[in-house]
Amino acid sequence: MSGSGLVLVVAGPSGVGKSTLLNRLLKTDPRLKFSVSMTTREPRPDEVDGQAYCFVDGREFERAVSAGELLEHALVHGHRYGTPRRPVAEQQAAGFDICLDIDVQGARQVRDSGADAAFVLIVPPSMAVLEERLRKRHTESPEELARRLETARVELAQRDLFDYEVVNEQRGRAVAELRAILTAERCRIRS
Amino acid sequence: MSGSGLVLVVAGPSGVGKSTLLNRLLKTDPRLKFSVSMTTREPRPDEVDGQAYCFVDGREFERAVSAGELLEHALVHGHRYGTPRRPVAEQQAAGFDICLDIDVQGARQVRDSGADAAFVLIVPPSMAVLEERLRKRHTESPEELARRLETARVELAQRDLFDYEVVNEQRGRAVAELRAILTAERCRIRS
Repeated sequence: MSGSGLVLVVAGPSGVGKSTLLNRLLKTDPRLKFSVSMTTREPRPDEVDGQAYCFVDGREFERAVSAGELLEHALVHGHRYGTPRRPVAEQQAAGFDICLDIDVQGARQVRDSGADAAFVLIVPPSMAVLEERLRKRHTESPEELARRLETARVELAQRDLFDYEVVNEQRGRAVAELRAILTAERCRIRS
Repeated sequence: MSGSGLVLVVAGPSGVGKSTLLNRLLKTDPRLKFSVSMTTREPRPDEVDGQAYCFVDGREFERAVSAGELLEHALVHGHRYGTPRRPVAEQQAAGFDICLDIDVQGARQVRDSGADAAFVLIVPPSMAVLEERLRKRHTESPEELARRLETARVELAQRDLFDYEVVNEQRGRAVAELRAILTAERCRIRS
């Protein structure tokens, strides 16, 4: 045992239910911490700065990129998202495992960086189900909805980038699968 | 999904408690089947032919080896053990996952064969605990006991051959970890 925690990268299309699954997992696993992403998008009414995201302006985001402070960053639907490197390293050094809720572009960057991480893709049971879930959120215009669905298709085509796939059909089962992946990764022999 | 089940190779030193863990796992998982090994050793009083092992003589074992019928085979403490290839293939084709309770030499052969399998090493909390467990079985002479402990040391030194390590300290926890590994492997994306 190296005393260094592991990194769980969880990605999947917008609307697939990643955050809900991760929140459930985090609640029952005190050894797992959440990596708070930095974003340039506007907070939704219920969002508190520093919880799900740190909200910054474009200039601050660009500064972090230039300074090499981000483990990955991506442009998604016109907004920038990134993972600050330092909190991840600090939690790992403290022996915690850390999960990243990021998009597929970001997952590819973490993979390419050679980081020792486990990559999980959350997928919907079908594209029709994903479309229905996005519609129900009522947060997107029809154009935005179409754009998200097209992005989802592109993302799901990149499943070979990932180690694991979890189908979010039954939420309880999907959480159990995520939990099993985390437990298994804790038993993994890293050479 | 290919419809083809996966292979779970479980190995570990004699006396570590592999069979007990696997039996518990098998009882609660109808999708998992057990691969019955062939052996030339004598059955113990409580052993029924065809359950934990198929008991054969040296000539029949040698015939199976020559005919290429075994996925792996090994000489352990003077007795031969092997995994018949056909039942494994048949269960997999029927969509079942199959677990192999074999020794480290055998695990190495399955690994070298390039078979798509997950390899789990069951380890004792310490060598002292393993020695105590072997003593309590009262089935070995002092010379046999010493030989088993020496073999255990050699086996445990080969942990890099394996994907996962499960410490059999608390039985319930070890079974849960084995179950999590199986669940995670079922979510694994095979490219």
